[in-house]
Amino acid sequence: SRPVRAPRGTQLSARHWLTEAPLRMLMNNLDPEVAENPDELVVYGGIGRAARNWECFDRIVDALRALKTDETLLIQSGKPVGVFRTHEDAPRVLLANSNLVPKWSTWEHFNELDRRGLMMFGQMTAGSWIYIGSQGIVQGTHETFVEMGRRHFNGNLKGKWVLTAGLGGMGGAQPLAATMAGASMLCIECQPSRIQKRLDTRYLDVQAPDIDSALRILANAETTGKAVSVGVLGNAAQIVPDLLRRDVRPHAVTDQTSAHDLVNGYLPLGWSLDKWHDMRERDPQAVVAAARASAAEHVKAMLGYHKLGVPVFDYGNNIRQVAFDAGVTNAFDFPGFVPAYIRPLFCRGIGPFRWVALSGDPEDIYRTDAKVKELIPDDPHLHRWLDMARERIQFQGLPARICWVGLGQRHRLGLAFNQMVASGELKAPIVIGRDHLDSGSVASPNRETESMKDGSDAVSDWPLLNALLNTASGATWVSLHHGGGVGMGYSQHAGVVIVCDGTEAAARRVERVLWNDPATGVARHADAGYGEAIECAKENGLNLPMIGPMIG
Amino acid sequence: SRPVRAPRGTQLSARHWLTEAPLRMLMNNLDPEVAENPDELVVYGGIGRAARNWECFDRIVDALRALKTDETLLIQSGKPVGVFRTHEDAPRVLLANSNLVPKWSTWEHFNELDRRGLMMFGQMTAGSWIYIGSQGIVQGTHETFVEMGRRHFNGNLKGKWVLTAGLGGMGGAQPLAATMAGASMLCIECQPSRIQKRLDTRYLDVQAPDIDSALRILANAETTGKAVSVGVLGNAAQIVPDLLRRDVRPHAVTDQTSAHDLVNGYLPLGWSLDKWHDMRERDPQAVVAAARASAAEHVKAMLGYHKLGVPVFDYGNNIRQVAFDAGVTNAFDFPGFVPAYIRPLFCRGIGPFRWVALSGDPEDIYRTDAKVKELIPDDPHLHRWLDMARERIQFQGLPARICWVGLGQRHRLGLAFNQMVASGELKAPIVIGRDHLDSGSVASPNRETESMKDGSDAVSDWPLLNALLNTASGATWVSLHHGGGVGMGYSQHAGVVIVCDGTEAAARRVERVLWNDPATGVARHADAGYGEAIECAKENGLNLPMIGPMIG
Ligand SMILES: NC(=O)c1ccc[n+]([C@@H]2O[C@H](COP(=O)([O-])OP(=O)(O)OC[C@H]3O[C@@H](n4cnc5c(N)ncnc54)[C@H](O)[C@@H]3O)[C@@H](O)[C@H]2O)c1
Ligand SMILES: NC(=O)c1ccc[n+]([C@@H]2O[C@H](COP(=O)([O-])OP(=O)(O)OC[C@H]3O[C@@H](n4cnc5c(N)ncnc54)[C@H](O)[C@@H]3O)[C@@H](O)[C@H]2O)c1
Repeated sequence: SRPVRAPRGTQLSARHWLTEAPLRMLMNNLDPEVAENPDELVVYGGIGRAARNWECFDRIVDALRALKTDETLLIQSGKPVGVFRTHEDAPRVLLANSNLVPKWSTWEHFNELDRRGLMMFGQMTAGSWIYIGSQGIVQGTHETFVEMGRRHFNGNLKGKWVLTAGLGGMGGAQPLAATMAGASMLCIECQPSRIQKRLDTRYLDVQAPDIDSALRILANAETTGKAVSVGVLGNAAQIVPDLLRRDVRPHAVTDQTSAHDLVNGYLPLGWSLDKWHDMRERDPQAVVAAARASAAEHVKAMLGYHKLGVPVFDYGNNIRQVAFDAGVTNAFDFPGFVPAYIRPLFCRGIGPFRWVALSGDPEDIYRTDAKVKELIPDDPHLHRWLDMARERIQFQGLPARICWVGLGQRHRLGLAFNQMVASGELKAPIVIGRDHLDSGSVASPNRETESMKDGSDAVSDWPLLNALLNTASGATWVSLHHGGGVGMGYSQHAGVVIVCDGTEAAARRVERVLWNDPATGVARHADAGYGEAIECAKENGLNLPMIGPMIG
Repeated sequence: SRPVRAPRGTQLSARHWLTEAPLRMLMNNLDPEVAENPDELVVYGGIGRAARNWECFDRIVDALRALKTDETLLIQSGKPVGVFRTHEDAPRVLLANSNLVPKWSTWEHFNELDRRGLMMFGQMTAGSWIYIGSQGIVQGTHETFVEMGRRHFNGNLKGKWVLTAGLGGMGGAQPLAATMAGASMLCIECQPSRIQKRLDTRYLDVQAPDIDSALRILANAETTGKAVSVGVLGNAAQIVPDLLRRDVRPHAVTDQTSAHDLVNGYLPLGWSLDKWHDMRERDPQAVVAAARASAAEHVKAMLGYHKLGVPVFDYGNNIRQVAFDAGVTNAFDFPGFVPAYIRPLFCRGIGPFRWVALSGDPEDIYRTDAKVKELIPDDPHLHRWLDMARERIQFQGLPARICWVGLGQRHRLGLAFNQMVASGELKAPIVIGRDHLDSGSVASPNRETESMKDGSDAVSDWPLLNALLNTASGATWVSLHHGGGVGMGYSQHAGVVIVCDGTEAAARRVERVLWNDPATGVARHADAGYGEAIECAKENGLNLPMIGPMIG
């Protein structure tokens, strides 16, 4: 094991900040505080890596240290394959990870290439060096709940509660995300250790000994209006149908068990944990069959709530597909979370904007928090998020912040941060990026582009144009990935990072990149016919040749 | 019908040459002299289009006319979807055509989207505005024959002859390409009109009344050493096996019937043309079955020649797959043309480099021809090509030239052309581009990346990196396509065009782009372990971090 940690402070180990930044961010992705399995170079997302292997890591570091202000390093699935002369306004690093010609875009072929050392799974921000730990997950989930509240409860989740299951790696963010959004939550989890971990880290408020106690706590919260999250030990395939039968009516229903992985991720109905672990070894196919049947019962109950008019949504764990495969033909009656709640945000270019303080000093982030509030004074939701994030979420690795803002705001924040670097208000440059799950950067028909208005779910011209335009705009690094989030064959997506080093040149690039990047998302949604996007394009004066007449 | 023809001369209809160039090239692609079916906006390659529909064409033209020196137009499958501010060293147009998320990368899904007006097939140079008519096909075929001669006949095809079939749209280039390479050819074609057309345009030298007369003509050519191309009417599925049985031994064997399209492209054994046409209407499935069985006989004979040690290769019409599907399990025993002959060229970054005179004046091309000879004085093969191309190939649309040159030569030619524009030696700017079938720009496991040394045939990180790097280097337009050449699901590829407007700024961009673009091809082949590519990288001082030690 060779632990990696990004350098802090203002002393450069590369020739300049635009190459120091990718160097520190690569290392930060592999920081044991940040990465799930740093020894294997795995950052998150199953096998999402930051570099193909340690030799490639070392050569990338060497290349970045030596890179000049007018050179560009190419990374092919985590391997450094060339340094070329470009110019100062061009990206310093260009990355393409896990891309396969479509007919060969399967896990089988990928795994074969991976075994032979020819490929790497980049997931989304793992291979593109802008992962910031669990803060990103908390906020994505939080925004989903908030938007759900806007849609169904006039923006006020006070006294409301959400029913869900799963307190695992990502699902564990649900209770915190809910209470931060003002809602209570009942979360069913079958493993005691998972519940304990969320209590320990204060992501979950209390554990109830049984379902009736849990319901009493929630009833009390409904009266007082004070949001509380309650965990209860049990099997969701049992409890959700029970609650439906008992006419218990939550205000929203979702799920984050790992239904996408039936061997390891979903406890079959009536099975003990011991039996589950044992059978996984002895007869994984039997586990799959039992888990699929149980998940189908779970989905049937979710459909029951959907029919009653309760907002129900799939949170990207593929549980509808599992039930559909088990014969529940109407499994897709309730929507995925993107078409249900996130798309209206995407229409305005709003998505998981984030930044990192290369100084390593938390004060730098706190100063940017204050600057965001100053520049966006009239957004209480955003202020609340910033306050609660500061209070309740620990930094992992280099201090970072995420907050969902869109076209028209991102470049203002970027310019302000750059100015703060220039004036010395911040100790070192700031790196700005985003998830690939964003407005203009992804085609993923089972998730981000599910049920597009015009049926263009599978059209992946958009993320490719996004990457090309970000390159043309002068981003510091740009990436093109395949298979993130939903696996081989199911998505294509692009990443972008831009560095505020306090120079005038950086200001010009920051302004272009942080305008153009969300603008491609607005254009993509306007092209698909979304009124909000056309409206947003109009307000921001975008030049979209085929919708010009509508705008004018 | 609304015929389109690019403006000629030096008067600009756009604001500057960097936008006038894509405007003229788009229009030139649709010139009736150039395009196969201009009314449908089809340039070539079945349904390869230059714009999605006429409304999109008009809006693209408007957008290009208005585009400023620091703006970039985005084209999504032939539709103009946005104009964004970038900078003067960025591309003026970025295009993504026909790209689909892999699981949806089928003709069925594409056709559905196409019908609904949501997509366009870009083929290779159709949607990326750098098609130049049949000159490109003649030379690609010519280079294949020449390389075959280098491999098997010490570079001397004098007295040698090639057996092939098909004198259609592309296959009709074979006899000219062969005689230009110094070889004779026997070409079997089942339609009299096709033979007549090639005689009329002087692509084919003579027609023989029967196979024995043809063989006499070839025997005579073998003695005199004067290359001659002979067409003979007949069915290849009959004649090729007959020749094998009769122990007639050609020096090489290939085929360009349209075996990739069994409904329309391959005449079944024993059928008259009338029956063929009639049955296509009445029972296309019966045609497919009969054609497949016939093509299988044809391939068996090709395999017979292969076994005898005669060089045999598939020229990208998928005939091996057809025979394989009919039960010829060893159909893939003989190679495709890329692994057989083209790959060594790709290893040195050599591929279908081409340029166009925006003035419309053929003299501009003749002056560049002379400049190429002056700058590359020691390449008789290249000189011969230039002379023969001038003599035997008519310009279609704007005058253009193609010639296969590689890393180290392309940027020298580009800089010289730019200088000639600056000095007034040429009347107007020159546009430089290439096919997507090139060294670093395509992943296509059944064609350009068939049988890569390390098994990385399907890895498409490379064309994506190529497009990103060309964008970062300041190309004038850059494109990313899917499905060209071999159809939906089977390829991903990138295009690049750079304009020599005679300015100093253009010179800097030309130098970077025309170096970096072929260099990615050398890097890609070096990474796959090809000695020629590693050698070429070394000679040219490329900085390839993981092969650095080998080079050093
Ligand atoms: N779309 C998105 O952006 C997004 C974000 C987060 C998570 N997800 C999806 O959510 C799922 C959960 O992710 P994770 O990282 O938390 O996975 P995980 O495997 O770490 O956690 C799953 C949890 O569910 C529990 N569980 C399994 N079966 C159960 C049952 N029958 N009843 C009650 N609890 C049960 C497990 O004990 C475990 O704690 C995954 O499918 C993931 O892909 C999607
Ligand atoms: N890989 C490449 O770069 C490349 C380049 C050129 C062509 N090709 C392939 O070559 C093939 C030909 O292309 P094209 O544009 O000339 O097609 P085309 O359809 O215009 O021509 C095919 C010709 O073959 C003749 N033919 C059909 N069956 C025959 C038979 N049994 N015997 C004799 N003649 C027969 C037809 O009459 C026709 O003239 C296609 O499959 C194409 O994809 C590939």
